[in-house]
Amino acid sequence: MYFGSDNQTGASPQVLNAIIEANNAVTDAYGEDQWTQQACAKISEIFECDADVFLVNTGTAANSLALACMVDPWSSIICHGQAHIINDELTAPEFFTHGARLIGLDTQEAQLSAQSLSSYLSQGAAHPPHNAEPKALSITQASESGMVYSVEQVTELAKVAHQHGLTVHMDGARFTNALVNQKCTPAELTWKAGVDVLCLGATKNGALAAEAVVFFNKDLAKSFVARRKRSGHLLSKGRLYGAQICGWLENDHWIELAAHANQQASKLAAGIEAAQSTRLVWPTMANEVFAILPNQTIEKLRTAGAVLYEWIPGFLPRDLAIEKDESVVRLVCSFRTQDEEVAQFIEHLS
Amino acid sequence: MYFGSDNQTGASPQVLNAIIEANNAVTDAYGEDQWTQQACAKISEIFECDADVFLVNTGTAANSLALACMVDPWSSIICHGQAHIINDELTAPEFFTHGARLIGLDTQEAQLSAQSLSSYLSQGAAHPPHNAEPKALSITQASESGMVYSVEQVTELAKVAHQHGLTVHMDGARFTNALVNQKCTPAELTWKAGVDVLCLGATKNGALAAEAVVFFNKDLAKSFVARRKRSGHLLSKGRLYGAQICGWLENDHWIELAAHANQQASKLAAGIEAAQSTRLVWPTMANEVFAILPNQTIEKLRTAGAVLYEWIPGFLPRDLAIEKDESVVRLVCSFRTQDEEVAQFIEHLS
Amino acid sequence: MYFGSDNQTGASPQVLNAIIEANNAVTDAYGEDQWTQQACAKISEIFECDADVFLVNTGTAANSLALACMVDPWSSIICHGQAHIINDELTAPEFFTHGARLIGLDTQEAQLSAQSLSSYLSQGAAHPPHNAEPKALSITQASESGMVYSVEQVTELAKVAHQHGLTVHMDGARFTNALVNQKCTPAELTWKAGVDVLCLGATKNGALAAEAVVFFNKDLAKSFVARRKRSGHLLSKGRLYGAQICGWLENDHWIELAAHANQQASKLAAGIEAAQSTRLVWPTMANEVFAILPNQTIEKLRTAGAVLYEWIPGFLPRDLAIEKDESVVRLVCSFRTQDEEVAQFIEHLS
Amino acid sequence: MYFGSDNQTGASPQVLNAIIEANNAVTDAYGEDQWTQQACAKISEIFECDADVFLVNTGTAANSLALACMVDPWSSIICHGQAHIINDELTAPEFFTHGARLIGLDTQEAQLSAQSLSSYLSQGAAHPPHNAEPKALSITQASESGMVYSVEQVTELAKVAHQHGLTVHMDGARFTNALVNQKCTPAELTWKAGVDVLCLGATKNGALAAEAVVFFNKDLAKSFVARRKRSGHLLSKGRLYGAQICGWLENDHWIELAAHANQQASKLAAGIEAAQSTRLVWPTMANEVFAILPNQTIEKLRTAGAVLYEWIPGFLPRDLAIEKDESVVRLVCSFRTQDEEVAQFIEHLS
Repeated sequence: MYFGSDNQTGASPQVLNAIIEANNAVTDAYGEDQWTQQACAKISEIFECDADVFLVNTGTAANSLALACMVDPWSSIICHGQAHIINDELTAPEFFTHGARLIGLDTQEAQLSAQSLSSYLSQGAAHPPHNAEPKALSITQASESGMVYSVEQVTELAKVAHQHGLTVHMDGARFTNALVNQKCTPAELTWKAGVDVLCLGATKNGALAAEAVVFFNKDLAKSFVARRKRSGHLLSKGRLYGAQICGWLENDHWIELAAHANQQASKLAAGIEAAQSTRLVWPTMANEVFAILPNQTIEKLRTAGAVLYEWIPGFLPRDLAIEKDESVVRLVCSFRTQDEEVAQFIEHLS
Repeated sequence: MYFGSDNQTGASPQVLNAIIEANNAVTDAYGEDQWTQQACAKISEIFECDADVFLVNTGTAANSLALACMVDPWSSIICHGQAHIINDELTAPEFFTHGARLIGLDTQEAQLSAQSLSSYLSQGAAHPPHNAEPKALSITQASESGMVYSVEQVTELAKVAHQHGLTVHMDGARFTNALVNQKCTPAELTWKAGVDVLCLGATKNGALAAEAVVFFNKDLAKSFVARRKRSGHLLSKGRLYGAQICGWLENDHWIELAAHANQQASKLAAGIEAAQSTRLVWPTMANEVFAILPNQTIEKLRTAGAVLYEWIPGFLPRDLAIEKDESVVRLVCSFRTQDEEVAQFIEHLS
Repeated sequence: MYFGSDNQTGASPQVLNAIIEANNAVTDAYGEDQWTQQACAKISEIFECDADVFLVNTGTAANSLALACMVDPWSSIICHGQAHIINDELTAPEFFTHGARLIGLDTQEAQLSAQSLSSYLSQGAAHPPHNAEPKALSITQASESGMVYSVEQVTELAKVAHQHGLTVHMDGARFTNALVNQKCTPAELTWKAGVDVLCLGATKNGALAAEAVVFFNKDLAKSFVARRKRSGHLLSKGRLYGAQICGWLENDHWIELAAHANQQASKLAAGIEAAQSTRLVWPTMANEVFAILPNQTIEKLRTAGAVLYEWIPGFLPRDLAIEKDESVVRLVCSFRTQDEEVAQFIEHLS
Repeated sequence: MYFGSDNQTGASPQVLNAIIEANNAVTDAYGEDQWTQQACAKISEIFECDADVFLVNTGTAANSLALACMVDPWSSIICHGQAHIINDELTAPEFFTHGARLIGLDTQEAQLSAQSLSSYLSQGAAHPPHNAEPKALSITQASESGMVYSVEQVTELAKVAHQHGLTVHMDGARFTNALVNQKCTPAELTWKAGVDVLCLGATKNGALAAEAVVFFNKDLAKSFVARRKRSGHLLSKGRLYGAQICGWLENDHWIELAAHANQQASKLAAGIEAAQSTRLVWPTMANEVFAILPNQTIEKLRTAGAVLYEWIPGFLPRDLAIEKDESVVRLVCSFRTQDEEVAQFIEHLS
């Protein structure tokens, strides 16, 4: 019963095979290899547009490099108060941007709302050069609460951002999970909805270490190559990333992987809702389930070998009613989550 | 009727004279001159301790240099949500600290409370190396709402901070105004209450451009000299700052200047409370008055030549009741504010 | 006999008077005051062009802010190996540019030659993104060896720089001394010769603390205002710099001050050349004299109260013949250097 | 005939197998996995000491993170003028150190000499806070000219460095090649000779992307974990690096790989020396050969499919005699270089 994180499995067999196959050739270094080229071309094809695409090893690098291309060092970046970039990347965005500031809104809501964004951006003109001006909006898809921004929500947020002169970044560490949930095209959930730059995460969804930074707004990409090299993220044997992405995208493998994870999460959620003593905090839309469980149940589960995390109190809805003998846990399903694990978990709830 | 800012007068005659007198000599450069030496020694004397003292030209430089000495680039700094460092210094703290993060608390309260600080710092251990760890607390004395932290409040805040491993910075742009209000010694309001580093502002209180960074905690001062030089803040003709501080401190001149400003603010506040259609937002403790005035009155005052600013709505108490035809204004008194200006202002209120 | 530095006197009486006169008014803060406005306009007028002009307090701040506007963080900046920016500013250019690299050429020559520059820039195309690309040339006028680049030299250096896509910065800490020497117009020695940005120093030549950054190439100035604020260099009582520059420029005062200093240096140089046991290292063109003196003479001079510095061996011509009992000294004259000081010095040489 | 670079092959079969084997398990993320733990322990064992070891993906990241731990932002770092860190990492060291300066010595010599280092460090005390103080020495082993510093040379360089208060960094991108050449123990060539921090490169010698930063001087390692996370170099599925290093070190595989590459280079060198019209620039000590070839021969080789690079003129000995119809080329052998390739190359020389 492993529901700790989607970071703790290896690669899917198809992705691993792609690495193995790419290993033999002698090829150009520093991303000039055929796999990197092909991976980038494939992403443009899938997103139905001519994007500038770059590969790196971690989500933190992808997000921070993207944001550094989007703002000045004296700008601010608006995000949700639970965003990974503001909570889990140890001021990496500040490092890469040379000191831009992150502003987290709606921390106790499950998602950032267009209204909060609009209200923040309208609160009075910045008084240059004294105040930091917002230059980018970052939204996480699927969000840190496991919820998915619909095409309409993304469109509305991006519209508000663009009206105020901000560009839009999407942290897509779990983008595929969101995509599967929304049943729309990759283009519809990104650039057609107003996203300027997407960090498309493969690592949590079946790769070992591969993330693509996709600039739909190619003007923003100008300094990426320099910033990537300068931060030590230009791999000499670039095929390592290129091959993973190739294997991951081939024959909709990425979609299948995320669909499996979402489905397992969905089954977990149904089990939790059905059980008498447990309930969900937020609807389960992607591969993460947030649930209120009796402490006794948690203990029982752990004894039985379940891995799961208690969630951060400050990130819960302000008016969430929790009893003293209950706790909030996060359960993450991955492409490898087995039916038996899910069934076993649900069994323990009653 | 000039109540716009305490930044818009020149120096007091005594401070100007000190510059004139220091101008003639040939002396060592780069802060090795006698005035700088004497100013620093005098500050140690006044604060009754052996502090490391450095002079710079602006409050932004003073605050940012001090904070850069106090935290790592991957730390966070806790401050009040209205703090000058987070609102009015265009990510200067981020620049000087190489990307540390500012966290603003209690934005809609007049002051940062020890309880909020404690609650924030206790909300769960940071999960290194993913989360930025708080390393410094910064409090503004007098605060941006014109209120003064008492010795007890400073003591309590510093105690909470120290308990969690933070050091304590005081932005004392209006420290003298706070000191006059509290009727205690400089030592009592700072290091005796737990302040590690004070930025003692002279500019707003009678100097032209001179701020002292006072390290009571001398361990924190190690990198100051390098950081000051490297940011272009080591003046070759250092006497310019040294002489100002000498003139400013001599014979309690700094105290007299602030006492005058506070007194004028106090008279203004009394007039506002006495008038029927006007009232205060917060008690007036230093040289700033925050008041709710009918828009008509504001217009009348402006027509009569009054300079004043409307205050930022986001910084007001959440439950402040303001009528549609009213606005909140900030009135700042300086060492030069004339009795006539105050009287004339009050006259216009009725 | 004070020949230690031009940093160790105060302001000229005319500059001091300008401060005194500006002190009284209530005026707008943050550089919106009339003196700052007038100083900037006057500089445009004197340089016969519509420049973007900004005032700061130190040469280090002026140079670093200017360079940060001119290059990317991953660029290199070419300068003379003796340049102040590479030797005496403690990596301030690196701090302000977020890590651009300084490349010093011709360290053992008195000046940077167009040929060296051309040879360096032609040595093979940079191999992006692996190698830092040169983006700016910085020349010091007058140079650190006390020599002056002629209009022709500046023109040729700027031409080479521009051909390779670099913009041209002039560190004019002693620009007026160079100007007096060249007997040309300010425009001819700067933008007409290809200079994009001039840091016009007043501090060493009669001010207390005032430097102007003059963008002839206004496109480069876009981020200056943000960078100045963010580095703590936007003065609230901006009149302090504005008034100094006004007083300094009025009625060619700046020219007179530098002419005096140059003339005293010239007399010193003549005396050194005339004496039997002493000689010059380089021709004296501005207000600095570099001379080889018998150690015995140096000791005699010091005993008599002379202040002078021994020069850095690594900065001397490779083939300079110095006897064991000789040393190289630097003598700096200022606007305040007295005839008697010069005469007394020369007397001691024989 | 592939002699272009040791970056253009994939991983050795043994290293690839290690990745495959590690792929299946569910394990802790962020470097807490068993492979990473085992890799780090194994390195301590091989180097016969208790070192702090960290894994990253590129040499640029390894070098820059190490140097950032060793110096202040206002320090300088001394290296050879041909060093990879100064020539091929696009100011990455400046980025990670927040602006420290690289000083390249002996550019036209094959190696940095203790005498040059000593002479540079003794040239006169830095004049704080104006001059950047050297805080670290970096040497590349094997060097960029394909030569190897002997234990004696490293010892002497480290001794000079330590005497002047510098710590010693070794860029070991080709450390194993140097080790094989010196026939000593890893400990003898590093910490026993005075090296404080080694960047042990596996990528060029049989891994896909894995470098180990080895702190023999553990005091220097304090901020590494934070810096790595903050620069996006903490891999979630850390096994990717851990497994490579495990496979690479097992049963002296790393030594065999480098021995093969060195041997092939050695054969190439012998062939070049034996041929009439070709000669070596420097002795071949590791896996790189630098040779002077007739342009005609180069063309013939390229026509036959040889991949090789012409070397940078500025990096050649000052007095190297090259005819007009000759060029200098660099030939790199890897663990995969075939006997046939070498034989075919040599055949083309006559």
